[in-house]
Amino acid sequence: MTSIISSRIVLGLLKPMLYVAGISLAVCSYHSLADAAILTRLAPWLCFPCVNLSSSGVFSISTFALSLLLVFRINSSYERWWEARSCWTQVVAECTHLANKTVQLLPPGSPCSSMRPVLLRFLKAFPVCLKAYLRRPGSRPLREQIEGLLQPQEASLLVGSPNPANTCLHMIGQIIAATDMRIESKTHLDESVRTLQGAAGSCDQILTTPLPLSYTRHTSRFLELWLTFLPFVTWQELAWWSLPVCMMISFLLFGIEEIGMQIEEPFGILALDSYCEDVEAAIDQAAADAGSMQQQIQQLTSQHHLLPST
Amino acid sequence: MTSIISSRIVLGLLKPMLYVAGISLAVCSYHSLADAAILTRLAPWLCFPCVNLSSSGVFSISTFALSLLLVFRINSSYERWWEARSCWTQVVAECTHLANKTVQLLPPGSPCSSMRPVLLRFLKAFPVCLKAYLRRPGSRPLREQIEGLLQPQEASLLVGSPNPANTCLHMIGQIIAATDMRIESKTHLDESVRTLQGAAGSCDQILTTPLPLSYTRHTSRFLELWLTFLPFVTWQELAWWSLPVCMMISFLLFGIEEIGMQIEEPFGILALDSYCEDVEAAIDQAAADAGSMQQQIQQLTSQHHLLPST
Amino acid sequence: MTSIISSRIVLGLLKPMLYVAGISLAVCSYHSLADAAILTRLAPWLCFPCVNLSSSGVFSISTFALSLLLVFRINSSYERWWEARSCWTQVVAECTHLANKTVQLLPPGSPCSSMRPVLLRFLKAFPVCLKAYLRRPGSRPLREQIEGLLQPQEASLLVGSPNPANTCLHMIGQIIAATDMRIESKTHLDESVRTLQGAAGSCDQILTTPLPLSYTRHTSRFLELWLTFLPFVTWQELAWWSLPVCMMISFLLFGIEEIGMQIEEPFGILALDSYCEDVEAAIDQAAADAGSMQQQIQQLTSQHHLLPST
Amino acid sequence: MTSIISSRIVLGLLKPMLYVAGISLAVCSYHSLADAAILTRLAPWLCFPCVNLSSSGVFSISTFALSLLLVFRINSSYERWWEARSCWTQVVAECTHLANKTVQLLPPGSPCSSMRPVLLRFLKAFPVCLKAYLRRPGSRPLREQIEGLLQPQEASLLVGSPNPANTCLHMIGQIIAATDMRIESKTHLDESVRTLQGAAGSCDQILTTPLPLSYTRHTSRFLELWLTFLPFVTWQELAWWSLPVCMMISFLLFGIEEIGMQIEEPFGILALDSYCEDVEAAIDQAAADAGSMQQQIQQLTSQHHLLPST
Amino acid sequence: MTSIISSRIVLGLLKPMLYVAGISLAVCSYHSLADAAILTRLAPWLCFPCVNLSSSGVFSISTFALSLLLVFRINSSYERWWEARSCWTQVVAECTHLANKTVQLLPPGSPCSSMRPVLLRFLKAFPVCLKAYLRRPGSRPLREQIEGLLQPQEASLLVGSPNPANTCLHMIGQIIAATDMRIESKTHLDESVRTLQGAAGSCDQILTTPLPLSYTRHTSRFLELWLTFLPFVTWQELAWWSLPVCMMISFLLFGIEEIGMQIEEPFGILALDSYCEDVEAAIDQAAADAGSMQQQIQQLTSQHHLLPST
Repeated sequence: MTSIISSRIVLGLLKPMLYVAGISLAVCSYHSLADAAILTRLAPWLCFPCVNLSSSGVFSISTFALSLLLVFRINSSYERWWEARSCWTQVVAECTHLANKTVQLLPPGSPCSSMRPVLLRFLKAFPVCLKAYLRRPGSRPLREQIEGLLQPQEASLLVGSPNPANTCLHMIGQIIAATDMRIESKTHLDESVRTLQGAAGSCDQILTTPLPLSYTRHTSRFLELWLTFLPFVTWQELAWWSLPVCMMISFLLFGIEEIGMQIEEPFGILALDSYCEDVEAAIDQAAADAGSMQQQIQQLTSQHHLLPST
Repeated sequence: MTSIISSRIVLGLLKPMLYVAGISLAVCSYHSLADAAILTRLAPWLCFPCVNLSSSGVFSISTFALSLLLVFRINSSYERWWEARSCWTQVVAECTHLANKTVQLLPPGSPCSSMRPVLLRFLKAFPVCLKAYLRRPGSRPLREQIEGLLQPQEASLLVGSPNPANTCLHMIGQIIAATDMRIESKTHLDESVRTLQGAAGSCDQILTTPLPLSYTRHTSRFLELWLTFLPFVTWQELAWWSLPVCMMISFLLFGIEEIGMQIEEPFGILALDSYCEDVEAAIDQAAADAGSMQQQIQQLTSQHHLLPST
Repeated sequence: MTSIISSRIVLGLLKPMLYVAGISLAVCSYHSLADAAILTRLAPWLCFPCVNLSSSGVFSISTFALSLLLVFRINSSYERWWEARSCWTQVVAECTHLANKTVQLLPPGSPCSSMRPVLLRFLKAFPVCLKAYLRRPGSRPLREQIEGLLQPQEASLLVGSPNPANTCLHMIGQIIAATDMRIESKTHLDESVRTLQGAAGSCDQILTTPLPLSYTRHTSRFLELWLTFLPFVTWQELAWWSLPVCMMISFLLFGIEEIGMQIEEPFGILALDSYCEDVEAAIDQAAADAGSMQQQIQQLTSQHHLLPST
Repeated sequence: MTSIISSRIVLGLLKPMLYVAGISLAVCSYHSLADAAILTRLAPWLCFPCVNLSSSGVFSISTFALSLLLVFRINSSYERWWEARSCWTQVVAECTHLANKTVQLLPPGSPCSSMRPVLLRFLKAFPVCLKAYLRRPGSRPLREQIEGLLQPQEASLLVGSPNPANTCLHMIGQIIAATDMRIESKTHLDESVRTLQGAAGSCDQILTTPLPLSYTRHTSRFLELWLTFLPFVTWQELAWWSLPVCMMISFLLFGIEEIGMQIEEPFGILALDSYCEDVEAAIDQAAADAGSMQQQIQQLTSQHHLLPST
Repeated sequence: MTSIISSRIVLGLLKPMLYVAGISLAVCSYHSLADAAILTRLAPWLCFPCVNLSSSGVFSISTFALSLLLVFRINSSYERWWEARSCWTQVVAECTHLANKTVQLLPPGSPCSSMRPVLLRFLKAFPVCLKAYLRRPGSRPLREQIEGLLQPQEASLLVGSPNPANTCLHMIGQIIAATDMRIESKTHLDESVRTLQGAAGSCDQILTTPLPLSYTRHTSRFLELWLTFLPFVTWQELAWWSLPVCMMISFLLFGIEEIGMQIEEPFGILALDSYCEDVEAAIDQAAADAGSMQQQIQQLTSQHHLLPST
């Protein structure tokens, strides 16, 4: 993955850096020709001004604002990325908790135990639906992704929906409502469903609400203008060395902006597949462990029956 | 929308930039005339001082504080904007959750099923009322916006209210209280109502509490003073080039302030209409899906009846 | 209000700016006299050193730390101010929710309906008590402020208390406990009471815990020292222009500190009266709407009785 | 208190400032002797280099990073301090809420009313136990502090415990569990107990987890190195004035670090005693008010009995 | 521990500092040889340019962005570290609360009191499982760590699991579900279990999601490039003194980066063992105190029986 990001960033930097290289080359050539008095000989009727900017002067005034803007940009993007990650942590934790509660409250042999596998299947499907929604344009069709998790009839419910994650949560709520759990337990589970609804909403917020366009475009424009004038500043001090130096500085600064852009849309970078697998593994584990756990508890309390009286 | 914001910003920048252009022009003209000794010839009895500020001197001292103020300004505005967006995410998520719970707990055939469509209608109306309130002066009258969602008698309840969003939440609470749901379920739904009340309150807070005026005005004043003195600094180094350079720097810095001003009042920029449509679609979807979901669950549990015993 | 803050800030700035003006005047006079060799003539036995600081040298070293301190100061103050505002948003939202729930759960004709107006009266009184506490020294006596809201006997309960907001919450809790609501509903309302207790606590925290004195005093001291040395730096470059320039820079920097000081104690600036009126209006509205709402619901469900069976 | 902090900071600054004074003196003396060519006369076989650093050069490079580190340091410390204060706000609010609920739910005459004073006593003792724990080494023994609040037998329970605050919360939970309140009310109170447990945990976290040592030591080392080299920079510009100037700059910068150090461990500065008294006063007030409140409510509802039916 | 961190940082700094030392040595040697005209004598057919960078020029432009990046890096790492610490505070508080509630609700003599020690044992095992997971590769095998806490049969349940912390929480939930507590109490305890699940999830998030690689690598690369060019800047001003000065500056800046790297992965630094012991001690204390507490309460309420009627 490292190499992918790396190459993406290099690709993203190629165009702006070529632009800076072009400007630098032009400025250096012009000054060299002017210095060698070649221009004056070629076109003596023109005036060739020496355009030099002092690095400690006007130019440095804007440096400060630019750096702050760039770092604020990367900071905001980082917060979006971490918030997106936290939403998925919530998804994994709440799905696991719901699965644990399901196998606890619908033990085999209870009247509604037939609903248990259905509920667990939909809990596995929820993160997959959310992932498919968040990676909409480029990802595999949802049908393929959930056909191994759900039965055909169940899958058709989700595939036909305009918002499968919502529909999946609705179905989970319907199943919980239809079981014979005590109302207090149902309410407890519904709170997890509410949290999942909120987490899905936050993901949607991050997906559909980029950083204000006016802000990101202003930062880009500022950076481009600044780098356009950079070669005028460096020529006096560095002469032809200003070509590599300008390239390097533009690489460092465009790099900051590019990274901000990459992590601004976090769902393309986060390991959503791995989180979905975590949920699936946790649910399978919960179902697998339940038997031996209930056996241990039963041994312990051989004098009174396994199922809680409440 | 991009082009709208862009043009708004350009319009907002026009006046201050013309001011800076005027100052620059005056300073450059004065210096040119003074250098050409024209002024001394015209009015030899006057002394024409050469007003130059060194860019690395006194001037740079204030640059730092100014940049920090501007970036802190844009940062605070951004946080307001993101908080406003998050409130609407909460509104969408909680309305969806309430709608899902309503169709789960008031299935067709239950004694209170006649209240179900009313409750769903008011859930659709709530974000519309909130939107109308937040965009008060310029938006379409509330009556027009909700006449397609509510029945006339219901709409009149909201239209006549000084605070329709509050009234809508009150009505939702009244309907929930009047149904025959179990008290635990009602309490669960009331918690969603409480969250909606809080989200509406936070939106109101952002709408009615701008950044402290003393702060925003001080930043503006600082920036204006700074740009007024800029041409005195740039003349020495750039001569007549200082006119375009001052314009550019003022564009970059006023741009930062202008963006801060734009996103400080987020309800004009956020896609509130789209969020209202999201709620409407989610509620319609919930109502539409309920039938087939309950059928699937019934098939699954053919041995015991559909409605939960609790 | 704008003009009040503005004039307050101007007043606050008067003294420090006069100080800076004095220092500048002294420095400029001294240098002028020294340059004109007047001092040497007056007191030839003394040595009059030329005290000049380079602006790019030692002085600029401290500029950076000072700017960061000032901006961190304003930032911390702003966070306090916003947190105070958020607490009042919570107060308004929870009082409204409590009022809505009260009219829903104690409809006219129910056995405890006589407690309904009392509860609503104390809900109106709570923000007024909190406001009076937060603006303690200068505000109107609590008795005057609540005499229109409560009956004399009720008011005496609050007026005699050392902490009326706490007593008011206690009374609200007592009334809720004394009604015949279901225990689940009481618990739901008690959670709102708990939130109000927390919001009152946070307001108290902001009122009684200023920014650490050592911090604010160090920033002030730093700023004063810095401005004391400023005229020594500016003389060389600006001569007698340094008088207005020093005044302007001190206005801009003292202004930042002064704003920080103003919004550090937010309860003097926030529109607490308006929030109290919001609560009163919302409660009156809740009581007024309840009748027509319950009528509509009754029409809808003519086949079953108005009051919920639960 | 102001004067205490102030003097503490002055004491803390004494040693590092003497160090800077020493270095400055040495540098100034060396340069003076070298300039007066005294050194060369004393030891002509040695070479006495003139060690000057340009203030705008290498030195300014590190100024920036140093300032940011110092401000980040003070910022982190401030956040710890405010978080500690917020935990105590929670403690006060939750203890008050628990006391209010206790007098509401265990009115005089109810079967468990004998537990009411015990519960209130332990609620008063909890903040005292927490305070004693947080100020462990230097504070008065816990036994003395709680002997006025608890009966001897109760006090011995806490004094013997390795973690009295935990034991106190456990006892509060035990008493709540032993009363005849309804289970829903008990659960409501247990949530307050859980919040108190969390607040105590957060206080413990702040007490036992200082800022990463590597970070604070690196900042200190950076600052010391920087100030060691400062006199070499200032000599050229300020000659013997560099002694007072270096002292002043070191006072301002060490001051920032020292303040960070002071508020990093907030429990020595916060007015914990006052918060404990607030809790005690609120509990006494709750117990005192309960009678007249219940009387008022009884008058109001003369037609039905005082105690709630639930 | 201090010395370990310190030496770790020193080791981590060794390689990059040797690199900077090498560059500095090369640059200084080259300039010395060029100055002494030795190079020209050795290879007169080559041109030996004098490569000097002005410290106030191009170089200072990048200084600003670099410092901001480094401080943002350390800031993000610090937030991760504090968040990790807060999760463990939650773990300790919730385990303690669960243990307190367990001994309150399952007193000796109650029908399910045989489950009490099992539940307490698993509560002790949970933080140990979490710790083992978070320090996976290098830590002692889980079996060894929990064999003193759990009985062999119980331990085998956890040791065999791919995610022992999850399994432990599942088992805790199963035991709670199997007891004869009232459903409201079970729900209250399940909320603590949910919080523990969330805290474990957040720990996992911090463990498996480092700061975006592109970001940390760009900062490293920026710093390395900057330090590579540093000797070219310092030669002019400091000559051979630039060797120690470059070393010192690289030590200070690499130190910031190194500290960021150390606290970015907080589970290697936090005193997890101590937190596990805290939980164990709190649970033992809860079990030990319960007897004398219940005795005191019984004495107090001799007229009615010890166990609550609810």
